[in-house]
Amino acid sequence: MNTFGKIFRLTSFGESHGKGIGGIIDGCPAGVELDMGFIQHQLDRRKPGQSKITTQRKEPDSVEFLSGVFEGKTQGTPIAFAVWNKDQHSNDYNDLKDVFRPSHADFTYTKKYGTRDHRGGGRSSARETIARVVAGAIAKLILQQLGITIQAYVSSVGRISLNKPYTGLDLSKTEDNIVRCPDAEVARQMIKSIEQAGKNHDTVGGTITAVAKGVPAGWGEPVFAKLHADLGCAMLGINAVKGFEYGSGFEGTKLSGSEHNDVFIRSKDGIKTKTNNSGGIQGGISNGEDIYFKVAFKPIATLLKEQQTVNHVENEVTINPKGRHDPCVLPRAVPIVEAMASLVLVDHFLMNKTNKI
Amino acid sequence: MNTFGKIFRLTSFGESHGKGIGGIIDGCPAGVELDMGFIQHQLDRRKPGQSKITTQRKEPDSVEFLSGVFEGKTQGTPIAFAVWNKDQHSNDYNDLKDVFRPSHADFTYTKKYGTRDHRGGGRSSARETIARVVAGAIAKLILQQLGITIQAYVSSVGRISLNKPYTGLDLSKTEDNIVRCPDAEVARQMIKSIEQAGKNHDTVGGTITAVAKGVPAGWGEPVFAKLHADLGCAMLGINAVKGFEYGSGFEGTKLSGSEHNDVFIRSKDGIKTKTNNSGGIQGGISNGEDIYFKVAFKPIATLLKEQQTVNHVENEVTINPKGRHDPCVLPRAVPIVEAMASLVLVDHFLMNKTNKI
Amino acid sequence: MNTFGKIFRLTSFGESHGKGIGGIIDGCPAGVELDMGFIQHQLDRRKPGQSKITTQRKEPDSVEFLSGVFEGKTQGTPIAFAVWNKDQHSNDYNDLKDVFRPSHADFTYTKKYGTRDHRGGGRSSARETIARVVAGAIAKLILQQLGITIQAYVSSVGRISLNKPYTGLDLSKTEDNIVRCPDAEVARQMIKSIEQAGKNHDTVGGTITAVAKGVPAGWGEPVFAKLHADLGCAMLGINAVKGFEYGSGFEGTKLSGSEHNDVFIRSKDGIKTKTNNSGGIQGGISNGEDIYFKVAFKPIATLLKEQQTVNHVENEVTINPKGRHDPCVLPRAVPIVEAMASLVLVDHFLMNKTNKI
Amino acid sequence: MNTFGKIFRLTSFGESHGKGIGGIIDGCPAGVELDMGFIQHQLDRRKPGQSKITTQRKEPDSVEFLSGVFEGKTQGTPIAFAVWNKDQHSNDYNDLKDVFRPSHADFTYTKKYGTRDHRGGGRSSARETIARVVAGAIAKLILQQLGITIQAYVSSVGRISLNKPYTGLDLSKTEDNIVRCPDAEVARQMIKSIEQAGKNHDTVGGTITAVAKGVPAGWGEPVFAKLHADLGCAMLGINAVKGFEYGSGFEGTKLSGSEHNDVFIRSKDGIKTKTNNSGGIQGGISNGEDIYFKVAFKPIATLLKEQQTVNHVENEVTINPKGRHDPCVLPRAVPIVEAMASLVLVDHFLMNKTNKI
Repeated sequence: MNTFGKIFRLTSFGESHGKGIGGIIDGCPAGVELDMGFIQHQLDRRKPGQSKITTQRKEPDSVEFLSGVFEGKTQGTPIAFAVWNKDQHSNDYNDLKDVFRPSHADFTYTKKYGTRDHRGGGRSSARETIARVVAGAIAKLILQQLGITIQAYVSSVGRISLNKPYTGLDLSKTEDNIVRCPDAEVARQMIKSIEQAGKNHDTVGGTITAVAKGVPAGWGEPVFAKLHADLGCAMLGINAVKGFEYGSGFEGTKLSGSEHNDVFIRSKDGIKTKTNNSGGIQGGISNGEDIYFKVAFKPIATLLKEQQTVNHVENEVTINPKGRHDPCVLPRAVPIVEAMASLVLVDHFLMNKTNKI
Repeated sequence: MNTFGKIFRLTSFGESHGKGIGGIIDGCPAGVELDMGFIQHQLDRRKPGQSKITTQRKEPDSVEFLSGVFEGKTQGTPIAFAVWNKDQHSNDYNDLKDVFRPSHADFTYTKKYGTRDHRGGGRSSARETIARVVAGAIAKLILQQLGITIQAYVSSVGRISLNKPYTGLDLSKTEDNIVRCPDAEVARQMIKSIEQAGKNHDTVGGTITAVAKGVPAGWGEPVFAKLHADLGCAMLGINAVKGFEYGSGFEGTKLSGSEHNDVFIRSKDGIKTKTNNSGGIQGGISNGEDIYFKVAFKPIATLLKEQQTVNHVENEVTINPKGRHDPCVLPRAVPIVEAMASLVLVDHFLMNKTNKI
Repeated sequence: MNTFGKIFRLTSFGESHGKGIGGIIDGCPAGVELDMGFIQHQLDRRKPGQSKITTQRKEPDSVEFLSGVFEGKTQGTPIAFAVWNKDQHSNDYNDLKDVFRPSHADFTYTKKYGTRDHRGGGRSSARETIARVVAGAIAKLILQQLGITIQAYVSSVGRISLNKPYTGLDLSKTEDNIVRCPDAEVARQMIKSIEQAGKNHDTVGGTITAVAKGVPAGWGEPVFAKLHADLGCAMLGINAVKGFEYGSGFEGTKLSGSEHNDVFIRSKDGIKTKTNNSGGIQGGISNGEDIYFKVAFKPIATLLKEQQTVNHVENEVTINPKGRHDPCVLPRAVPIVEAMASLVLVDHFLMNKTNKI
Repeated sequence: MNTFGKIFRLTSFGESHGKGIGGIIDGCPAGVELDMGFIQHQLDRRKPGQSKITTQRKEPDSVEFLSGVFEGKTQGTPIAFAVWNKDQHSNDYNDLKDVFRPSHADFTYTKKYGTRDHRGGGRSSARETIARVVAGAIAKLILQQLGITIQAYVSSVGRISLNKPYTGLDLSKTEDNIVRCPDAEVARQMIKSIEQAGKNHDTVGGTITAVAKGVPAGWGEPVFAKLHADLGCAMLGINAVKGFEYGSGFEGTKLSGSEHNDVFIRSKDGIKTKTNNSGGIQGGISNGEDIYFKVAFKPIATLLKEQQTVNHVENEVTINPKGRHDPCVLPRAVPIVEAMASLVLVDHFLMNKTNKI
């Protein structure tokens, strides 16, 4: 099950230390102009080595399109693409061949498949998200044509939290710092905290908040494939994600119905709601208000320090991993969150075309 | 998109004030003995009028199987079923025909489809979850054969919260009280809080926690259809759900990697983990530990009090809804959460059969 | 796998001697006016006992809609329906409980599922096609709005064949006789042949030809889900079907390319082809010409005469089936062929909406 | 919709004159040893320039695996692969940029997508079938482990037909001649006929027959995804295919039921049938007998001679195509038929694992 989406479908492939990461986008409408600079820029936001707080693996991560594009435009045919791996240090993993690293997928892959590619986490590496960013960039280009924007930002790192709703922030400042938090002062603290974790050979988690503006009312399927259920599924499918909430989320469970309900009002733009605890989605369908949600990322499991664990013959062993790793996944996960949200929205845009004659 | 699941698939139908609610289960293995008492019991846990803190709509909610069962066993063929509606008071909704109730799906359905059945919320009514409970009960019977149990309970109502992990609770006591909280004292406070909300013609939200024990290592698809992503999608597809987290969840984002990692150890039962921040799932695949997660429910949108809103011609109107409604969805949602989790687990059990020759 | 279609999806249920046959149509656009007389008429064309050359099982086969329709129109929500069985004579099958009838599904069902409902063929009975005719009737109503007609007719019974292309026939005469062949003289011979088979307690096969007019250019998916591949799959999924060809079909394999190619020409209606060996489909996509195809039906396997066979413990036995059966499936299969073709066309109509922004 | 299969799924990509042709196989079981020589051999059977009766385009068509294989074995993860194009002569197509070639997909692609890659037919080129042969070769390796073989051969070219059932042929001789017909004398006539067509700058069609031996009873889904319906869909999805029949096929429609029925008998291998008009499939499910079917291929539309047609502005034009083309698709289609049949069988093998607990 390496396919995501119902009509606009991404099937991804690749391993951390194999030939590369890529995918096929099927169901992309014809005639979309592919702004290659834009697509590469999204990859650059995700790539390793982009700042002092990310892994130092050096990968240009430039995307090559293999099919489906002719004279700069999509053809309605499958769009295959690949990002070739360049800077694998597979030998760093030799010692880990038969070891199950704590809180990694080594153990579960072995149990499921009876085999695994141990080099750099193989398929379970977050390097797989490259495919999502490429496909998401194309989805973003489609959404742009429809007047829709998606912006994500880091809203907490460990215990350092940006205690403001997105409406009180200037999201245009998100990319002004390396941690991708739109508040400069909080960003400074976050960076410091990540650097400290790195020095300790430890890692930190955090949350990302995302906002989609301009989604028209009527997108989403009301029962199982609710718009927020598909968004949640998309987010929970990203490596290291442990939770998802939209609109008022977990905090909203503490309110009474009369505090929580979003009253409809007339406005010059038609029917709007006074508040937006619904997070832009009611009954699983967008209502035209901003869609916003928050995603929880655990601290990365790879620690560059000694740890106890067990190997494949159930012997206890001590590991001391090498390799080049991020002390915090959050800054590089921002474009991934945006990409997955874009895939969901384009998919629902296309599905929504089919419910009237 | 009224189908849930990849191999074990439920397609549901029905409206709150139509002929009934039902569904077709396709992909159910042959030879499963259907314990009709068990299935009806699950429906009884969900049905209206079961206690003083639920809606007083009187529905026996007894399920009729229409196909796929012969001499008490499943045949591998589609299992159709229906629960016929008996106690509709459709006239209660006449005044709401053209009105968009706050935080309901009235507005979004109309925007999406250009039409809607306004009686009792039509398709968007939580009465639709009957189909999930029936299908989930069959899934539970399959899981029972595999030695797997799923238990959910109310872990908070409004600001009243059960501040203990599930490991410190006796889950066999969940059904001892009408709110379905395994701690008698906290349950008492929750019931009081719901009664108070009812008196105020208001509503309250809360959270449900669920635990699956006995799931073997190896279930789940590692990339997009991660086991927790499918669980999250299932939960977010339940009416009124606003958030999902598993394992350490949102709180876990505040820990460091060295605090959060689950160290592997040898035990007489094979490889286990010392802690279980992973919530029984690593890299999207079960690791054999308990799977646990928490679901956030908003306060129900239907208030039996005067509210401002807008109608379909964009006039502002005042509504004062009648009808019979729950002041709190949580107690009746417990079997729904269990049902949806069971559907996901059986689906992954069946999928998992296909990854070796 | 009891679901047919990608966007407009029918999931069917039911057995010959169970409570009834029905289904859920999901993905039907909202706002379609359901002409109940039209839908029932399609069922009447398929129902048993309609003439002296069909089985004498007496079933009114009237459809009841259970959901998805409000004030006579589809709501975009799932449309459930059932046709309740009335005239089962299940005892006729008691002797066949453990016997594998020749060329039936008794043996293969038992091998696949380890169990089967033996009464009247259970799920493998052609009575299941009721669900297809109901869903197909709704699809036809949608196609009517788009100016598309589908007409099928019996083009051969045994060795009696209508040796004319459809273009030389007046298809409005198809329903003028009980065998549904538009040529009165050939129809007379066909009826005689079926009656003779009935007298012999034997059965006959034949072919049905179908024509869709008015399908615009551009429907179909060019690689795996070619329009004719989906039509072929639909036809081969009908009980007793052994072959499918479209356009020039098997005969066309004998022509040279220069004889076979359809030359494009200008006309007042835009670009047309001079001939139509392509059967209205090129590269898997409709080209605006008539779509036509032919379907082969084997003689029905149920003979009301003594036959040798084997039972479930591998003993050789002689059977002498009772029950009420058709000597020829063709006349009643005409509306089924039309129904399945309509499902495919509506599905591609809806899919085709998604390939441009 | 460039994905084929339900569990073992091929998603293909690529154009005739783009970078290459390839695909992703998702859902392949882990632990399958990939015999690279075997896979390349299947491609060699399909490749251009292999004999004097095929196109002279020179392509080594060697496959490169990009993911999913580690130490020679499948990992349960997606297997991406590509065959890079080497010998495109795109300029041959410059004159055809705006022209709709008769019986090609030029017109219908333009109508569907509003755009097309005109070079060598773009996506509609039969070069796309490379992806099917690679995936099919892996499927074949799985079937080999299960003791199943699939063999196809050319059973007619134009009016030259091999008038024998497969049971009267020595299929091991199929590869002994360049036309892939197991009867040497008929093969000689076929080759002569193809050479004559080539000299006339014309083309010829024909039929391919295929036989699968060793499929156990119980594979197939009984209603819509009948085993033969999926085989038919697979075959009709191959370029130039116009018809499909299995077992007794169209000829069988002329028999009476008592002539056509396959009587069950006891044998030392368990229950068998005396005859096999069913073609190894009853009620959509395999019965353990040989599965056999026939596929009709039209004469290729590309003629290297002057033809009348119309261009995109509806002007009538004369074309005189260049390029390198096959006068007959049949010999190279034999491995494609085998590949598609293998994909269907493996898919049903895996699906069949899920219908018992």
